[in-house]
Amino acid sequence: MTLLANERIDQLSQFDREIIQSDDTFSLSTDALFLAYFARVRKTKKQKIVDFCSGNGAIPLILSAMTDAPIEAIEIQPELADMARRSVALNHLEEQITIHTGNIKSATSLVKPESVNVITCNPPYFKVYPDSWINPNDKKALARHEIAMTLEDIFKQSQALLKERGRLILVHRPERLTEMIQAGLKYRLIPKRLRFVHPKPDKPANTLLIDFMKNGQEKGLQVLPPLYVYTKDNVYTEEVKAYLHQG
Amino acid sequence: MTLLANERIDQLSQFDREIIQSDDTFSLSTDALFLAYFARVRKTKKQKIVDFCSGNGAIPLILSAMTDAPIEAIEIQPELADMARRSVALNHLEEQITIHTGNIKSATSLVKPESVNVITCNPPYFKVYPDSWINPNDKKALARHEIAMTLEDIFKQSQALLKERGRLILVHRPERLTEMIQAGLKYRLIPKRLRFVHPKPDKPANTLLIDFMKNGQEKGLQVLPPLYVYTKDNVYTEEVKAYLHQG
Repeated sequence: MTLLANERIDQLSQFDREIIQSDDTFSLSTDALFLAYFARVRKTKKQKIVDFCSGNGAIPLILSAMTDAPIEAIEIQPELADMARRSVALNHLEEQITIHTGNIKSATSLVKPESVNVITCNPPYFKVYPDSWINPNDKKALARHEIAMTLEDIFKQSQALLKERGRLILVHRPERLTEMIQAGLKYRLIPKRLRFVHPKPDKPANTLLIDFMKNGQEKGLQVLPPLYVYTKDNVYTEEVKAYLHQG
Repeated sequence: MTLLANERIDQLSQFDREIIQSDDTFSLSTDALFLAYFARVRKTKKQKIVDFCSGNGAIPLILSAMTDAPIEAIEIQPELADMARRSVALNHLEEQITIHTGNIKSATSLVKPESVNVITCNPPYFKVYPDSWINPNDKKALARHEIAMTLEDIFKQSQALLKERGRLILVHRPERLTEMIQAGLKYRLIPKRLRFVHPKPDKPANTLLIDFMKNGQEKGLQVLPPLYVYTKDNVYTEEVKAYLHQG
């Protein structure tokens, strides 16, 4: 296994996986972990899962411990896609996980339309405003800002790739909820489950997890109990400890 | 004070108010109480507050203990509007609270357009589907089902009555969130604060409180910590006890 400068191998021991990370790019966050658990993917091999904006492949690696389904990932940055491919090899998961280098805007040229059961996505969180000063060559900026794609592209491409009643599972910032619902309605992806992540009890949510169904009915949105990351005493909650297999 | 058959006077002692209620119609619920606290109305007299779908006037009566502002209420059922007027008299609040009998669809004929700072509304929660069997003369049904008006009417009339940056504060069911955001976008009422009410920790939300701003920017939705009604041990939480001035 070749590691490039500034790269390291981190353990995802609770999933029996290893992941190559680098300080030069965006590293695995608890958001990816929460998304993977929130997705509640089925075990069966007879489905297809796609991960948009896959970065160094954290979500496919975690999901591969939860399902036998084939997983295809799309990542625009060649360095990150390469890192993800080497992590896949490191874990001997080449049969299950395929990493595509490409823009999700071209997703239908990479993955067969109307063939996918579940799309997961931990996208760039921040809009690019006309007055934003962002270096478009900055690798971290590409992972954090909507430079190469927008929130709407995720919904447009999900509508194209998903099977009828397939699911799009997103992690995002609560302040983008209105736009997500708007884009969802535009592309007939209807929110069915919603969960907010609060850093602590008594603090506003800083993250949300949302599950849209392709061509679903508008009735029946379920708002789950919140996920608290830390207790009032600044230690991980029991739920997060369980996710991290700690304590 | 004349009480009709089946009517009684209930104490809202924490607000130093009394309210006439009847088992024949819809009685005060904790939803009205939560909405009144969530609204965070200012004390100043120099504003106008309107309560849509006001029923027996619970929200105006509670709000009158929180603000010196004039409050106008609109209720379609004459019996309920009459009950509300008698409660206003019982509390000597005729100077502060005006009860209009009418459909909120005609709100602009009752209240001057673009004159209102805050609209509160605890509307009928349930949609009427073509296959619903509902007796349109049933008074409880009118308060629970969208027979006389729809969710969209609330947004349309709020856009007409509110001043620039005025607020519409709603209590509703979480499964209607998508529709509320859709109607809000249609009438340029942008969600700014959102709070979910869960009957207990670890249970899905059964109620939501939402605050829309007229002609607001889409950025900046705040998702507050949840409101739990009961603890795991089936007693009111400290927050609800404080609202009820218990314990």
